[in-house]
Amino acid sequence: MPNITGHTELVGLMAYPIRHTQSPTTHNLAYDKNGDDVIQLAFEVDNDTLEAAVESIRALKMLGSNISMPNKTVVHKYLDEVDEAAKLCGAINTVVNTRDKDGNVTGYLKGYNTDGMGYWQGIKEEGIDFKGMKMVLIGTGGAATAIAVRGALDGIAELHIFNIKDKFYARGEEIVDIINKNSNCKAEMHDLGDLALLKEKMHEADIFCDATGVGMHPLEDLSNIPDPSYFRKDLIVTDTVYAPRETVMMKQAKEAGCTRVYNGMSMMLFQALIAIELYTGKSTPVDYMKEKLGI
Amino acid sequence: MPNITGHTELVGLMAYPIRHTQSPTTHNLAYDKNGDDVIQLAFEVDNDTLEAAVESIRALKMLGSNISMPNKTVVHKYLDEVDEAAKLCGAINTVVNTRDKDGNVTGYLKGYNTDGMGYWQGIKEEGIDFKGMKMVLIGTGGAATAIAVRGALDGIAELHIFNIKDKFYARGEEIVDIINKNSNCKAEMHDLGDLALLKEKMHEADIFCDATGVGMHPLEDLSNIPDPSYFRKDLIVTDTVYAPRETVMMKQAKEAGCTRVYNGMSMMLFQALIAIELYTGKSTPVDYMKEKLGI
Repeated sequence: MPNITGHTELVGLMAYPIRHTQSPTTHNLAYDKNGDDVIQLAFEVDNDTLEAAVESIRALKMLGSNISMPNKTVVHKYLDEVDEAAKLCGAINTVVNTRDKDGNVTGYLKGYNTDGMGYWQGIKEEGIDFKGMKMVLIGTGGAATAIAVRGALDGIAELHIFNIKDKFYARGEEIVDIINKNSNCKAEMHDLGDLALLKEKMHEADIFCDATGVGMHPLEDLSNIPDPSYFRKDLIVTDTVYAPRETVMMKQAKEAGCTRVYNGMSMMLFQALIAIELYTGKSTPVDYMKEKLGI
Repeated sequence: MPNITGHTELVGLMAYPIRHTQSPTTHNLAYDKNGDDVIQLAFEVDNDTLEAAVESIRALKMLGSNISMPNKTVVHKYLDEVDEAAKLCGAINTVVNTRDKDGNVTGYLKGYNTDGMGYWQGIKEEGIDFKGMKMVLIGTGGAATAIAVRGALDGIAELHIFNIKDKFYARGEEIVDIINKNSNCKAEMHDLGDLALLKEKMHEADIFCDATGVGMHPLEDLSNIPDPSYFRKDLIVTDTVYAPRETVMMKQAKEAGCTRVYNGMSMMLFQALIAIELYTGKSTPVDYMKEKLGI
C-alpha cells in the first residue's frame, strides 16, 4: 500500500453513491506497481457539486478524475475538450488534466470514455481481431452505448442493437443514427420482443454482448435469451456483468457449446488501466493485475 | 501505511512550495493509529488558486485542510467563520469542514490557528502551568504572533516582545495593541537592539521564546542572544526552530545551567495533533507519535 508523502499526487473518482467502489483498489495497485507516487480517492459528488468538483481538479492539480453515475452525461459541460468517441456516445468516465511538455498539469481538462475502449481491449487481449465482425448487442444504456460507438469506430462492420420497447428504445435509435453517420459500420435498431429476429441475427453474428445488467443482482436468475439454441458454437459471447462471475446467459452459451464466453471483469479492468495510462502515460502489467485482483 | 478504499476520506494541506513537507507523514501516522480511514495529501496551492482550492474542501467533502505559506493570512476571505485567536493573530493554519449532529461534513468552513495552541500544548506536556507567567518573546512573524496571542488569551500575565527595528517592528506594535485590548495580559514592544533592556526583561521572565528562525539553516551559527549571561538557571527556554534540534541559543541556555530547554519539535507535533483532533474528534497518543517520529 502506498507510502504517502508531500510528493504524492491525486486522481479522483467522482460519483454518488460511491463508497462501496472497488476502483481505488485497482488504481492504487496499478500506480504502486508502475512506481508512480499517485493514489486514487473516491469523492461523493453529484450533479449539484460536480462543477466545483471539476474545478478542484484544476485547483488541486489533480492528474484527473474518473467519473461515474450520475455525472457521466453531465460532466462535459465543465471540460475544455471531449474525445470524439466520448462525444458520440454522450458520456465521459475519465477526465484528464492534460500536461505540458515538461509533464506538468495544465488545468486544460479533456474527457474520454474508457468503458468502450475497455470492452474492446478485453476482446483484443483474448487474441481476437474484431475488425469486420458482425455484432449483436442488447441494451441502450451507458455501457451499451460506449461499446457500440467504440466498436463502430474501431472496425465492427455490422451492428444489431436490440432493446425492449421501453423509454430507452429511442436512445437506441439515436445511437444507431450516430453510428451510421459517423462510421463505416452499418447499424440497425431492433425490438428485443421479436425473438425470431434476435435468433436470426445471433446466428449470423460473430460476437454477442448483453450490456443490460440482466443477470446481475437482483436479476441474477434471469437472462434476455430464452434458451441455448440462440447461440452458435463459435459465437464470441460477452456479458458486461461481473457479479456473479457467470450469469445465466453465460451458462446458456456454454451449454450450447460456446468456448469463448467472457464476463464483465476484463471490461472493468481495462477501462481502469486505460484511464491510468491516460493519467500517467504508463501501461500496467495485465497479468499482475489479474492475479492480484483474482480475475 | 493506509489501505485506501472507497471509504477513505481526505484532509488537505494547501501551500506553495509544499512537496518537501513532513506533514503527511505525521498526519497519516496519527489517523492510522486512531483507526480513522483518513489520509492527508499535500496540494500546491498559492494565492491565485486558493479560492477554488477552498471550494474543493466543500465540493469533495474533505474533512478540512491545513494551510501554510503563502495562504495563512489570506484564507479567511473564503471561510464562513474564524476562531477568535486566529482572527486576533490574523493567520489561519487549519480549516475545518464542520459536521452536523450525525457527523456528516456540512460545507460550513471554520478557520483556526493551531500553531499557537501547539506551542502552549507542548509547554503543558512538560508539566508546566504557564498561567500568570512573564514571557520574553523574540520575533513578530507568523509563529511569534500565534504564540503571543494564544499565550495572552490563555493566561500569560506579562509579555515583552522584542524585534529589531526592521519593517516588521510595526507588526509587533500592532500585536501588542491587539493583546492589550483583547486580553488581561500586559504586553509591551521593545527594540531588540536595546540589549540591556533585553537582559533585564529576560532576568525577570519565567519563560523565553525565540520565534525568529535565527539558528536555523542558513543562520545555524547565529543566536539573537549575545552570551549565556542573559539566561537565569530556572528560565524556561524555547526555540521554534527544530532543525537543527539544538540551536546556538539552546546551547547558550544549557551553558548557563538552564535545564528546561526545548526546541520547536513539540510545537510542530502538537499543532498537527490539535488540527487532527479538530478534523476527527480524536486525540492521538503523544508518546506513540514521538517514538515513531523520533522526537
